[in-house]
Amino acid sequence: MIEENLRLMQQLRFLLELDKLKNIYRRTYVLHEDRPENDAEHSFHLAIMACILAEHAKEQIDVLHTMKMVLVHDVVEIDAGDTYAYDTEGAKTKAVRERNAADRLFALLPEEQGREYRALWDEFEERRSPEAKFANALDRIQPMLLNYQKGGISWKEHHVTEDQVIARNSGIIEDGSDAIGTLCRELIEAAKREGMLG
Amino acid sequence: MIEENLRLMQQLRFLLELDKLKNIYRRTYVLHEDRPENDAEHSFHLAIMACILAEHAKEQIDVLHTMKMVLVHDVVEIDAGDTYAYDTEGAKTKAVRERNAADRLFALLPEEQGREYRALWDEFEERRSPEAKFANALDRIQPMLLNYQKGGISWKEHHVTEDQVIARNSGIIEDGSDAIGTLCRELIEAAKREGMLG
Repeated sequence: MIEENLRLMQQLRFLLELDKLKNIYRRTYVLHEDRPENDAEHSFHLAIMACILAEHAKEQIDVLHTMKMVLVHDVVEIDAGDTYAYDTEGAKTKAVRERNAADRLFALLPEEQGREYRALWDEFEERRSPEAKFANALDRIQPMLLNYQKGGISWKEHHVTEDQVIARNSGIIEDGSDAIGTLCRELIEAAKREGMLG
Repeated sequence: MIEENLRLMQQLRFLLELDKLKNIYRRTYVLHEDRPENDAEHSFHLAIMACILAEHAKEQIDVLHTMKMVLVHDVVEIDAGDTYAYDTEGAKTKAVRERNAADRLFALLPEEQGREYRALWDEFEERRSPEAKFANALDRIQPMLLNYQKGGISWKEHHVTEDQVIARNSGIIEDGSDAIGTLCRELIEAAKREGMLG
């Protein structure tokens, strides 16, 4: 009884800490309001994409494993903040800031569970397993889809060029999914043609 | 090629439609900003709770199945809106409004996938399977946790009484989890004692 209750309290502390993801704003906008998307909304979107789009993964994937991975892939931003994809200054310190955050956050959980989820976070970052490759592909295509549907607003605001989007996203997306890789290329071409990208 | 592409386009249409969940506001508040929580944030929270808390389910559950269920359990609110838990007028038409919404939304997906997710939605509503019971328990305890952490703000605004919270939540939560059922009772007692509930 005491052991189960202790575990539950540790888990709740972690889950309540994650409420902060609802206040970490990204550079992408939601489609139907004039405000940026936050990390909780982004993670929701990736989780439902992971199960709906699983058939398009390049290699066979464990869908549950992928969903857990996308649900925690951004938790480190609670401490480290969101570093914009095209912010080269912030990128320099990002890895250290995020590793420290992961150390703190996953330690809130019961020990073996903390290790499991910390390993999922590392796996996402390393992009080696089929699940991590697919999860990363989703993480890159989701803001592109929103941005394109919204007239390229975030690309325009930050003067992002076609070459930057290709360099940052195309390889990673193709690594996770052929079909979504093709979609990515078509989307960039259309965005360029329609004046959304420099 | 054409078949895979067609499926992908149908899936994307569904996934982009779900962006509307980011603008459907609930009566619960997020913890660290002065604004209500939206359905995408709520669904994110339930999905991560489903995998972190799975061990506390009353019966053995399929975690992936449960996570998919919580991710789509609120999509009908895109058409039907959020009906507040203690709104007895809205409750009368809720079932019909939500069934119509489910008919439209899941039909956006490729046919057999639409059937799968529609069945998950029905399963959640019917609360019979171990997964549905656990998912419903999470759906009830999550706003209670936020509300309690936030000083009972939403209960006070709507003059909710201890008896109403017990009637609405306790049985359903106990049906899904003993440990979370105990937590629910303790939380209601504390909320009453601290003047958050009438």
